[in-house]
Amino acid sequence: MKLPSSFVVYDFETTGLDVQACSVTEICAVRYDRGIETARLDCLIRLPFKLPEKIIELTGITDVMLDESGIDEKDAFRMLGALQEGACLVGHNITRYDNHILSRLLRQHGHANTTNTYSLDTAALFKASLLKLPPRADEPLVEFQQRILRIMSPVKYSLSLCYKSLTGQEPNGAHRAKGDVEMIQAVLPHLMVGYEAYFNGHTLT
Amino acid sequence: MKLPSSFVVYDFETTGLDVQACSVTEICAVRYDRGIETARLDCLIRLPFKLPEKIIELTGITDVMLDESGIDEKDAFRMLGALQEGACLVGHNITRYDNHILSRLLRQHGHANTTNTYSLDTAALFKASLLKLPPRADEPLVEFQQRILRIMSPVKYSLSLCYKSLTGQEPNGAHRAKGDVEMIQAVLPHLMVGYEAYFNGHTLT
Repeated sequence: MKLPSSFVVYDFETTGLDVQACSVTEICAVRYDRGIETARLDCLIRLPFKLPEKIIELTGITDVMLDESGIDEKDAFRMLGALQEGACLVGHNITRYDNHILSRLLRQHGHANTTNTYSLDTAALFKASLLKLPPRADEPLVEFQQRILRIMSPVKYSLSLCYKSLTGQEPNGAHRAKGDVEMIQAVLPHLMVGYEAYFNGHTLT
Repeated sequence: MKLPSSFVVYDFETTGLDVQACSVTEICAVRYDRGIETARLDCLIRLPFKLPEKIIELTGITDVMLDESGIDEKDAFRMLGALQEGACLVGHNITRYDNHILSRLLRQHGHANTTNTYSLDTAALFKASLLKLPPRADEPLVEFQQRILRIMSPVKYSLSLCYKSLTGQEPNGAHRAKGDVEMIQAVLPHLMVGYEAYFNGHTLT
């Protein structure tokens, strides 16, 4: 299985669905260089306001947890900025969600824009496999993933469903960043089959 | 046991003893915020020259390992720069060795100088315990550690000896960064006894 030379599997927990307005409550990000884990960030983020009740229900992350263990958003995004530099971003539905939040908060905290990152979206790749749609000849991966995600279809492709379908295991605590990253790591090898030609070829250890 | 609110346990493997000239071949750095591990860097670094034979013998790190798995020095020190920002640095003999290399390579790779970091040197604290020398009244910790390290004395205080003496365990692979960091983590609670008043009080989880 070929994978990008440097990639970062990541997931955010947030306070809402609006990528231009929500705050991040939790980050998990794991960087691999040439098949080896080199860096990891796994933290809660302190917020200057109370969490919406719905979010507490969904994630189990509480105000007390953020107050006691959260770090400054600025520190978190400075670390994440350095960690993702030059790497391919990997995550579930990041094309339409997490990547936009990442980009906004990196900019907000003074991290120079990174132009060399591209993305592997396990949501798009899983949806493509359900729809049995391969990339067109010479279609760049980014455009392929965007095209797949735009297709109106009743197929469901949440991370939990994807994980269960591809590994045969029960999901381990969805909606906490570390658990979601572990599920993305587990489904990634299954989803890379057929896309090897896009990458410069390093296997995971 | 009280510890600094944010601290980074770290260790370098290098190509030599000259802090102004040596290169870093391996970094392990683990950040804790309020008692919880939040970030970790554990990587080899590619070098544009061959390793001295003595260094290969000492560490077991080879040119092949660095060529196959090493990352760019610039990427590594940008990540480390963000990771150590605002934290207390913790390590063995860092006051006279690793901190100088860190400072030089952060500067070299464009990381703004950090003025708010201070250090906990397990070599100094262990040597002080062997010599049964406590800090003087109102002596800042930095000055105490420097004073202890300057004392001419036949006592030996290598990390391996320190680890064996304080934990009763055999050292686990000295001279690799991750193993050394694990030993520093293990001796730290033993060495903090008596220095709690210096810190703002967070226990390790």
